Amino acid sequence: MEFRIEKDTMGEVKVPADKYWGAQTERSRNNFKIGASASMPLEIVRGFAYLKKAAAYANHDLGVLSKEKRDAIGQVCDEILEGKLDDEFPLVIWQTGSGTQSNMNVNEVIANRAQVLAGFKIGEGEAVVKANDDVNKSQSSNDTFPTGMHIAAYKAAVEITIPGVEKLKNTLDAKAAAYMNVVKIGRTHLMDATPLTLGQEISGYAAQLGYGLKALKNTLSHLSELALGGTAVGTGLNTPEGYDVKVAQYIAEFTGHPFVTAPNKFEALASHDAIVEAHGALKQLAVSLNKIANDVRMLASGPRSGIGEIIIPENEPGSSIMPGKVNPTQCEALTMVCAQVMGNDVAISVGGMQGHYELNVFKPVMAANFLQSARLLGDACVSFDEHCAQGIEPNYTRIKELVDNSLMLVTALNTKIGYYKAAEIAQTAHKNGTTLKDEAVRLGYVSAEDFDAWVKPEDMVGSLK
Amino acid sequence: MEFRIEKDTMGEVKVPADKYWGAQTERSRNNFKIGASASMPLEIVRGFAYLKKAAAYANHDLGVLSKEKRDAIGQVCDEILEGKLDDEFPLVIWQTGSGTQSNMNVNEVIANRAQVLAGFKIGEGEAVVKANDDVNKSQSSNDTFPTGMHIAAYKAAVEITIPGVEKLKNTLDAKAAAYMNVVKIGRTHLMDATPLTLGQEISGYAAQLGYGLKALKNTLSHLSELALGGTAVGTGLNTPEGYDVKVAQYIAEFTGHPFVTAPNKFEALASHDAIVEAHGALKQLAVSLNKIANDVRMLASGPRSGIGEIIIPENEPGSSIMPGKVNPTQCEALTMVCAQVMGNDVAISVGGMQGHYELNVFKPVMAANFLQSARLLGDACVSFDEHCAQGIEPNYTRIKELVDNSLMLVTALNTKIGYYKAAEIAQTAHKNGTTLKDEAVRLGYVSAEDFDAWVKPEDMVGSLK
Amino acid sequence: MEFRIEKDTMGEVKVPADKYWGAQTERSRNNFKIGASASMPLEIVRGFAYLKKAAAYANHDLGVLSKEKRDAIGQVCDEILEGKLDDEFPLVIWQTGSGTQSNMNVNEVIANRAQVLAGFKIGEGEAVVKANDDVNKSQSSNDTFPTGMHIAAYKAAVEITIPGVEKLKNTLDAKAAAYMNVVKIGRTHLMDATPLTLGQEISGYAAQLGYGLKALKNTLSHLSELALGGTAVGTGLNTPEGYDVKVAQYIAEFTGHPFVTAPNKFEALASHDAIVEAHGALKQLAVSLNKIANDVRMLASGPRSGIGEIIIPENEPGSSIMPGKVNPTQCEALTMVCAQVMGNDVAISVGGMQGHYELNVFKPVMAANFLQSARLLGDACVSFDEHCAQGIEPNYTRIKELVDNSLMLVTALNTKIGYYKAAEIAQTAHKNGTTLKDEAVRLGYVSAEDFDAWVKPEDMVGSLK
Amino acid sequence: MEFRIEKDTMGEVKVPADKYWGAQTERSRNNFKIGASASMPLEIVRGFAYLKKAAAYANHDLGVLSKEKRDAIGQVCDEILEGKLDDEFPLVIWQTGSGTQSNMNVNEVIANRAQVLAGFKIGEGEAVVKANDDVNKSQSSNDTFPTGMHIAAYKAAVEITIPGVEKLKNTLDAKAAAYMNVVKIGRTHLMDATPLTLGQEISGYAAQLGYGLKALKNTLSHLSELALGGTAVGTGLNTPEGYDVKVAQYIAEFTGHPFVTAPNKFEALASHDAIVEAHGALKQLAVSLNKIANDVRMLASGPRSGIGEIIIPENEPGSSIMPGKVNPTQCEALTMVCAQVMGNDVAISVGGMQGHYELNVFKPVMAANFLQSARLLGDACVSFDEHCAQGIEPNYTRIKELVDNSLMLVTALNTKIGYYKAAEIAQTAHKNGTTLKDEAVRLGYVSAEDFDAWVKPEDMVGSLK
Repeated sequence: MEFRIEKDTMGEVKVPADKYWGAQTERSRNNFKIGASASMPLEIVRGFAYLKKAAAYANHDLGVLSKEKRDAIGQVCDEILEGKLDDEFPLVIWQTGSGTQSNMNVNEVIANRAQVLAGFKIGEGEAVVKANDDVNKSQSSNDTFPTGMHIAAYKAAVEITIPGVEKLKNTLDAKAAAYMNVVKIGRTHLMDATPLTLGQEISGYAAQLGYGLKALKNTLSHLSELALGGTAVGTGLNTPEGYDVKVAQYIAEFTGHPFVTAPNKFEALASHDAIVEAHGALKQLAVSLNKIANDVRMLASGPRSGIGEIIIPENEPGSSIMPGKVNPTQCEALTMVCAQVMGNDVAISVGGMQGHYELNVFKPVMAANFLQSARLLGDACVSFDEHCAQGIEPNYTRIKELVDNSLMLVTALNTKIGYYKAAEIAQTAHKNGTTLKDEAVRLGYVSAEDFDAWVKPEDMVGSLK
Repeated sequence: MEFRIEKDTMGEVKVPADKYWGAQTERSRNNFKIGASASMPLEIVRGFAYLKKAAAYANHDLGVLSKEKRDAIGQVCDEILEGKLDDEFPLVIWQTGSGTQSNMNVNEVIANRAQVLAGFKIGEGEAVVKANDDVNKSQSSNDTFPTGMHIAAYKAAVEITIPGVEKLKNTLDAKAAAYMNVVKIGRTHLMDATPLTLGQEISGYAAQLGYGLKALKNTLSHLSELALGGTAVGTGLNTPEGYDVKVAQYIAEFTGHPFVTAPNKFEALASHDAIVEAHGALKQLAVSLNKIANDVRMLASGPRSGIGEIIIPENEPGSSIMPGKVNPTQCEALTMVCAQVMGNDVAISVGGMQGHYELNVFKPVMAANFLQSARLLGDACVSFDEHCAQGIEPNYTRIKELVDNSLMLVTALNTKIGYYKAAEIAQTAHKNGTTLKDEAVRLGYVSAEDFDAWVKPEDMVGSLK
Repeated sequence: MEFRIEKDTMGEVKVPADKYWGAQTERSRNNFKIGASASMPLEIVRGFAYLKKAAAYANHDLGVLSKEKRDAIGQVCDEILEGKLDDEFPLVIWQTGSGTQSNMNVNEVIANRAQVLAGFKIGEGEAVVKANDDVNKSQSSNDTFPTGMHIAAYKAAVEITIPGVEKLKNTLDAKAAAYMNVVKIGRTHLMDATPLTLGQEISGYAAQLGYGLKALKNTLSHLSELALGGTAVGTGLNTPEGYDVKVAQYIAEFTGHPFVTAPNKFEALASHDAIVEAHGALKQLAVSLNKIANDVRMLASGPRSGIGEIIIPENEPGSSIMPGKVNPTQCEALTMVCAQVMGNDVAISVGGMQGHYELNVFKPVMAANFLQSARLLGDACVSFDEHCAQGIEPNYTRIKELVDNSLMLVTALNTKIGYYKAAEIAQTAHKNGTTLKDEAVRLGYVSAEDFDAWVKPEDMVGSLK
Repeated sequence: MEFRIEKDTMGEVKVPADKYWGAQTERSRNNFKIGASASMPLEIVRGFAYLKKAAAYANHDLGVLSKEKRDAIGQVCDEILEGKLDDEFPLVIWQTGSGTQSNMNVNEVIANRAQVLAGFKIGEGEAVVKANDDVNKSQSSNDTFPTGMHIAAYKAAVEITIPGVEKLKNTLDAKAAAYMNVVKIGRTHLMDATPLTLGQEISGYAAQLGYGLKALKNTLSHLSELALGGTAVGTGLNTPEGYDVKVAQYIAEFTGHPFVTAPNKFEALASHDAIVEAHGALKQLAVSLNKIANDVRMLASGPRSGIGEIIIPENEPGSSIMPGKVNPTQCEALTMVCAQVMGNDVAISVGGMQGHYELNVFKPVMAANFLQSARLLGDACVSFDEHCAQGIEPNYTRIKELVDNSLMLVTALNTKIGYYKAAEIAQTAHKNGTTLKDEAVRLGYVSAEDFDAWVKPEDMVGSLK
């Protein structure tokens, strides 16, 4: 491989000749060979591109950066956002906890790429823009990285998670409406209970997702606040007056999302409670989805020795050894995602609780876990929706067979003959393997006519709306 | 010990003669000898007292319970709320996951105590109120226990956690204002950084708690929704028309909190995402408080070999072997609480994710963990506030010594001479153990006059509000 | 309430006149009003009693404590171990993170009780033994508290957890043997699969517990190492030569467990990885038990609309509203315990990871969580064993019905006609609601005779041992 | 893109023409668009390559597979192990929870690649080996995937984690020896305490890692047990006699690791407690490493306003805004890894606890988290070792200044003048800002000569070995 020599305040470094990154990126690449390479999420890099461009615009507006430099920076940022420079960000999550070298990676790439766009070779001629003095002007890693995190996290939540969950919720709402009159047995403690309708059952799932979406949306306000303008420790040292508000406005404009400057920059650097808070809502969604997916696979279990009340799509052969087997694989993918999100929540909390003084240095691990959760939940909901939920259908025969046979229909007699006599009827029928009606009449507690009038599954499910 | 014989649908049970509880409570007591006895939180029992009374009132209003029975039930509920019957609830958390026997415990105590209040012995005469048919009328364990959970959890959050956190936040706000002009060194990565004021630093802590309070308040709406009226599986079987709305109104009236009936009872029985959601906010507060308490103990560390920038109260001798030692014990109690809350969050999530069909059967463990967290956080904030935060004072001498000596003041020169020359000054001073000014002048980058004019800590801390 | 005046190095404190504790205990009681009172586990207090007595004996042997003082201390320690002084330990978990005041609580109670046993009033006459100089001789909170933790944790693991799990494992082993020939359908992905026997299925549960027990026993060696002798920072300052080995020998003798002195006292004070390690094994057991309890409740589900392959004991009425309902309540208690242990593992890890310099100050929270887990797991296994596992019986009729009907028996044909033709048979039978044999013959892939010879559930379960 | 048509039991599928995978892989690729593509770890694929080759050899030895087929399969497996076919495994973690399609992916690639190696085009001519009937012979996804998991996990633990941790431990052992006589102040509760040596302090870190390594090695036995031979549900259906033992022997031979067949195959399919167990040890290591890295960065903090007792290497410029700043970046990377491992432990436990009946369907998520943790811990230890630990040096001047100044040296006077007088000396010196000696003499408790003789830091550190 060919190299060129780059310099930083510590001295010279050999850098691959065909890459735009510079000395500090290369140092980090060599010093942190931990896990897969280039693991720093590209969403973060994109977040940086938005903020570097916004900073250039704000700096120009406030008179500390020329128009030429602003545009040179902006042009490279646009290239980054278009994905043209994806190979230029080789760093890993497991670096300095402030993401300093990822900030410098972006600074260096912008500076060197701008030089090339201006017709020079890297390192040749006077610098069009300097990495630290121009690209990073009015900035510090300590406020840029959390800004990049918030941009990426907000976008992921709003553009991937929420639409994915909403798509699934819409399907569940439609299924709930479609099957609102399909009376089936209820189950509590996994045991036979009083009836409800399939639509009611599914409406509970949809309600769960509704609450989860609301909870997630509640967290967006905190996530929309940006640290940028706090620079090194939150005081805004080396920023022009009015910069923080203006730079947030540009970010809002460029991203199309309602970002604002954080009212307290000390909090915004030293803690990442906004990430903790928003991921708490993702975790809540994981809890809900795990319950829903579990129910779906249990209700669909069989085909002959399970519950079998619903039918779900058959998407692929289920077994390499058992011919003809079909499995609830979307439920499995979804619950595995839920397990991951549960774990990610702990990783994020453990990172969030360990800030020291003016800086939390678990930024990359918190960002990476958040972005993984947000993406996985959104994608998995879409996958589950398209390949499973949309295809859910009642197995009417099975549903009717089970509900008609249930001993828990006896509950309808409570208000007629009291709990104790009703219990005696159910226990006797269970012991003898007979029907409730048989025993009710035989014990002399209810006449056959009354039984038929009082014990109707369809009258036991309350109002259907 | 003397016993009396009680009966339920399974047969006879010997019960301690001097206790109000009945057969089902006694079965549970014998069948679940797990951990300390009577571990079911009394807050849950109190929640049941509210709801049993409310149910009696709603049942009476709707014509299914006599005034006499309503008042008999209400009278015992009031006794429970006054703490007069605390010894009558011997069950443990680790019982049936719907809390059925705790519901029956309350039903049985109310029925038997009402009998005694009416002048009978337990089991003597006609029942004033029957445990299942009257006290539990229009109810199921499946909707009462989650209602009791929500009442208890809401009250704990609003009456203990929030006031405790607010009390601490108020102190931090006051400290931030009081020390807003005390310029000190900042630290990032635990390393010397540019200055800020002690007030700014503390304002970050206060801001964290402000966000946490907001997050917790966001969850109260979900927590205020009550399952009652759903009965066995959410359909409201065996409840009179309009019961769910009315019973929630009575609970709101009796507790003074804005409880409402849950719009989807299937969700309210089969999942406890409201608990998951609200505890997520408690966990966020734990994350914040851990950071704050860590900072306080590091800033107060010493007295001679630590950071020593602040002074905290000396509350007790710190060591059984080291004479004269004083320790940041309130920080330690608080961070231990934070660790517990982090763990409780996982216990709650693991419970919440495992609901099956129409019922989540991890109710008691979820409730107990929530109540512990809410109580511990509230109490620990009060303790930390009174015995530590209120007494925080700057060590002015130490603060001035450290900030004046800091190499990171060089950052003020960035905009004057550029990042690279500034770095050279700082590195040289570090290597030689000299001052920035010495090296700035010696290297010929800045005149002594300019240095004094440009490098002023008090000018590096931004706006102070 | 009456008070007496006690003194420590900070001055005077009013203490309840009828209590043995002194100034430092009282300070802690007043300074840490967090959660329920007296929450510090008595097991820890007992651990202290063992070590205080052992220290007195070792100090005497090594010539730094008189025989009279040794015996005075030993006598009170014996009273503590007999439970006679349980009301004398009012402190909470949420105190100083080294447990200093709990150490002083024990020191003070021993000193004052010894004074009374010698015929004096508290504070009267010359001190028989002094709290700091005699009872705490050659000790620090920093080495006594972790020693008390290890004693308590080791005893809980060996005396409660292991016997409880072994008891359940023995039952499962016996059930596995008893039902080794009961051929039933297997289920993978909750879907019908090839057959196995009920005994084989249960043998998997027993194997899980066997691995868990082995894992737990692997951790006992680390847990048996005691910090005592390290004093303040691990150097053993103020201890006589040979003290650490001797004091551990006395503890081993008094407890009957193989405790030894920790080879590296710095590790033993600054980290509690032994607790983290041992609780990791408890968590593994929780993971296993959750799986087992889930299977049992699913296999027992019904009575008419579930799986119903096994019958479990009916222990209590299952519902306050549904007459005759019986629920798998032991499974629910056990899985709630598992959720708690999962959470406790995080609390312990979060505490363990945050030691600073020479001391970890999350000792009480780590100890309390460990002891809760160890106790709950042991108790819950005994409860589950006695009230559920011992009563598990096959529902032979149901088992036979399901296995004979299964489409996955087709797997036996793979090696005869290949996977693809076998799949076609199964899919056709599924679509038509017919039997495998019908379709196998109809498709012309297998003769009726061959089918009967080849497809026998009892030949598909491998070797039975 | 060009496609070819592949078939499975569900029908035809279009597959990219230049890829070896077949219908089932393609179905999975289309049905599970969740997160980044090809996220299934290649280590798992390699594990499959070992086991497929071993199965072919065992099948041949036992007379159910021809030598030609054995060798055709083996040849492709070798190519996979050499990394030649890495692009042929496009599936994600978030698929069916048994990893069925990843098993089929390997089966299909082997079958099609063998066809090509034999000189045919894919799909052309008679199959050299068939995916299901030959490559998968005597196997099921249900026993192959956990076998692949164990092979990959065992190898990662033994080849990456353990060597990485040992490398760091060796350095710490060497540093402990090198600085065993460097007397410094100790700190407990972050406060000044009695002295110890830097070597002693570091020896505690090394001891922690020693325990962690022992704990991890304790888990290898369970991890070395392979499910292969259990096939669909653990009974070994469709395997020849003796197959399970033989195939494990081949795997042991091919990998060079002591793998054996699992004694209970039901456990090995239905639970993954071996993964839970082994990751518990990884989590313990994370807890230890977090403590160590925290201490290192606190001890190295400064350069002028921190603790500053040790010097660590300066690896990269620390700030994009603060010139000359150097940060403890290796500590940060390492503690971020620890946070991740803490989270992964929960993900794994949540997966492990949710097995159903004969199969746990959280296999891929458990495997992926385990492999990430094992890799990150090993890599991060190497990185921390090379770029930080090896370069740790004492700052002798600072160390001496702090220890000489410490008030906690007073502890040496306990055994001479008692705890109370010693406390008075320390408190007075603290209040007056004087030295212990000044106050000891002034108070008349100790003569100047005795003080000098009794209070020597170097005599307070115990035995040095």
